[in-house]
Amino acid sequence: MPVTRMQAAPTTTPIRERAAGTDYEGHFRNALERLHGERRYRVFADIERISGRFPTANWRRPDGRTTEITVWCSNDYLGMGQHPDVVAAMTETARRCGVGAGGTRNIAGNNSPLVDLERELADLHGKEAGLVFTSGYVSNQAGISTIAKLIPDCLILSDAFNHNSMIEGVRHSGCEKRVFRHNDLAHLEELLAAAGDRPKLIVFESVYSMDGDVAPIEKICDLAQRYGAMTYLDEVHAVGLYGERGAGMAERDGVMHRVDVIEGTLAKGFGCVGGYITGSALLCDAVRSHAAGFIFTTALPPAIAAAARASVRYLKRSSVERAAHQRQAARTKAALEAAGLPVLPTETHIVPVMVGDAELCKAAADHLLERHAIYIQPINYPTVPRGTERLRITPSPFHDEARIAKLTAALVETWETLDLPRAGTLFVEAAE
Amino acid sequence: MPVTRMQAAPTTTPIRERAAGTDYEGHFRNALERLHGERRYRVFADIERISGRFPTANWRRPDGRTTEITVWCSNDYLGMGQHPDVVAAMTETARRCGVGAGGTRNIAGNNSPLVDLERELADLHGKEAGLVFTSGYVSNQAGISTIAKLIPDCLILSDAFNHNSMIEGVRHSGCEKRVFRHNDLAHLEELLAAAGDRPKLIVFESVYSMDGDVAPIEKICDLAQRYGAMTYLDEVHAVGLYGERGAGMAERDGVMHRVDVIEGTLAKGFGCVGGYITGSALLCDAVRSHAAGFIFTTALPPAIAAAARASVRYLKRSSVERAAHQRQAARTKAALEAAGLPVLPTETHIVPVMVGDAELCKAAADHLLERHAIYIQPINYPTVPRGTERLRITPSPFHDEARIAKLTAALVETWETLDLPRAGTLFVEAAE
Repeated sequence: MPVTRMQAAPTTTPIRERAAGTDYEGHFRNALERLHGERRYRVFADIERISGRFPTANWRRPDGRTTEITVWCSNDYLGMGQHPDVVAAMTETARRCGVGAGGTRNIAGNNSPLVDLERELADLHGKEAGLVFTSGYVSNQAGISTIAKLIPDCLILSDAFNHNSMIEGVRHSGCEKRVFRHNDLAHLEELLAAAGDRPKLIVFESVYSMDGDVAPIEKICDLAQRYGAMTYLDEVHAVGLYGERGAGMAERDGVMHRVDVIEGTLAKGFGCVGGYITGSALLCDAVRSHAAGFIFTTALPPAIAAAARASVRYLKRSSVERAAHQRQAARTKAALEAAGLPVLPTETHIVPVMVGDAELCKAAADHLLERHAIYIQPINYPTVPRGTERLRITPSPFHDEARIAKLTAALVETWETLDLPRAGTLFVEAAE
Repeated sequence: MPVTRMQAAPTTTPIRERAAGTDYEGHFRNALERLHGERRYRVFADIERISGRFPTANWRRPDGRTTEITVWCSNDYLGMGQHPDVVAAMTETARRCGVGAGGTRNIAGNNSPLVDLERELADLHGKEAGLVFTSGYVSNQAGISTIAKLIPDCLILSDAFNHNSMIEGVRHSGCEKRVFRHNDLAHLEELLAAAGDRPKLIVFESVYSMDGDVAPIEKICDLAQRYGAMTYLDEVHAVGLYGERGAGMAERDGVMHRVDVIEGTLAKGFGCVGGYITGSALLCDAVRSHAAGFIFTTALPPAIAAAARASVRYLKRSSVERAAHQRQAARTKAALEAAGLPVLPTETHIVPVMVGDAELCKAAADHLLERHAIYIQPINYPTVPRGTERLRITPSPFHDEARIAKLTAALVETWETLDLPRAGTLFVEAAE
């Protein structure tokens, strides 16, 4: 069929508004209005970190004015993003190798610093091999989906509170799945027993980032062993932070060797960017060879890989940061609790202060930023269930006593000004 | 139901071999054996780029020995990864802001260099807004799926040769799709006409990376206009390289304003890492607010954003690199053709030399690397259709006449040694 050349048409507005369904801008406007209506529309604070002065940063207001603020919600938990070894590794490698990797892992992008980083990560977790992805999100999405697809008739058992990236990985696999109640061993066992001899993959996290609670890793491994299941553990909120060498909660609990796949991030405790899985050599090779999200994407830059490796190596040797992190988190919790603020009790470094209402939560965050130069992003639905909206506070080793005192006073003033619920008046357990 | 504590179990091998289906290692071994059997198992060359001497790199052999090689398959098409402005922006920003962003865009990670980069990209493509993702892969996967999901009853029309990331975006949207024959306007029109007044999204690329051919962008825009469809154009193999300011093929063809969404990468022509979309303010805000792959992942580091912005800004002003790129690509093609090598005719910078057999293609690449210190990754199925296996050569402005002469001689020697098909003896048109 010959192609008819069209008449040149008016070109001022690219999005046409012909039939009602093709008012594309209208669809996007509607989608945004729904978010506004549900108080779920998010505004990103524009900040610039100041290396050497973490957690101080410059907040750039919409009008361009800049205010110096204290960040109390960073996931650079130990401040490793400004560590001299880490910054030096990045700058030195950028000067030596340039900025980008220049290609996918298969086509010219497989740079030596990245290969070395994968060895370092395998060693960290006591596994045969490691595989680095462009992000922790992609490592879960591509890792879980690929592993499960390679196991014929695989049933996935997934914790109800798993991160969106894990849920996407499960969905993407196309495998049958059962969701077990959060950290509920009895429910998990019930589902495992019902599945019989079929291959099974249990996917769960060690530290759940919004409530700060921890999975019973050893007991899940016991169940996996008993029922012949494989285990996939997301340690993104634990790597660098827990265990003798910073390998995470499974290391702390002495059960690292019993977990089949340990997934982690380079972007939080290690202060860089990127994600990874570690496991058997066969497993990592199979994922390397089959995961589209790994194969068809540009490799992590050598300078990032070198910085991440420097961070991992440093934290393998040094426990000073981990100890200081736990100490300052405990002191922050104690100070806020003593002031009568509704702190959700956690056993980890994460300090949720509950608000229980989306609009008030955002108002509290705005007030803290405007009035006190304290930046804590409000956490609303869908990141947490409705009614459990909160300020999620993440103290680092650099949040010293003076900063904790300022934070406490600022929160108390904010709670009084906005008449927010105090401790004991709010249902602080996150909903099912 | 009370939880029974399990007995500690032997822990030497984490992967159990109970029922046949639960021999997990066996499943991964089988998957790898299938690849070996189909000659699809890939080995990554371990290379380290040498900044300032691009395209020279160090190849690290499995035994640790290092050989200096010339890379002829990098997607850092202009060598911008080693440009002094770009490297300086990265190192200077890393020193000022540290390495990682420290959080998602919503939670503490929305760094000023990244906000500035998005403005720069919107300006580059003449759009109201830009949105940066951790990779081009994610920008397609999350961008296409989110846009299509936000348009009720959307039908996606997708070019048959679209990249895996676009296919994943289409799949992920859950929308109905029709695949049109590659660059076939008649077939596209047929499908558009059959769809009636329903909302429609046409997704296609400008430069197809493996064959180096170019979409008829203007005519596709004509069809989109006539049938009330939206257009989503992937320019990853064109940004930085084509157009007055390096905005890509749509700029070169003077139709940038007629394309609704232009997607690009920071990892190829711009020499860094990351991906993006540009479009209307409403569209970008809607994607920003709904795309899980954007929301739940750590932001691109400020040092990467600053480096990418430096590269974009430089290439907006300077056309020297683009001219040199086209000149060296043309000279490479001419030299290889004159030597009787089976070059696939292309109108772009991509120079495919056809082999037509997976094993021979790998053998040729191995021979070039071992014997001539020339690195060109073999391109086999599934990246290209079976029977169209090739060496994909990407000359840059830094591949000078001496290097072209060496390449030509090395290829001729390789073709003779391995008795590979010469020009005219091979079906060089890529299969449907």
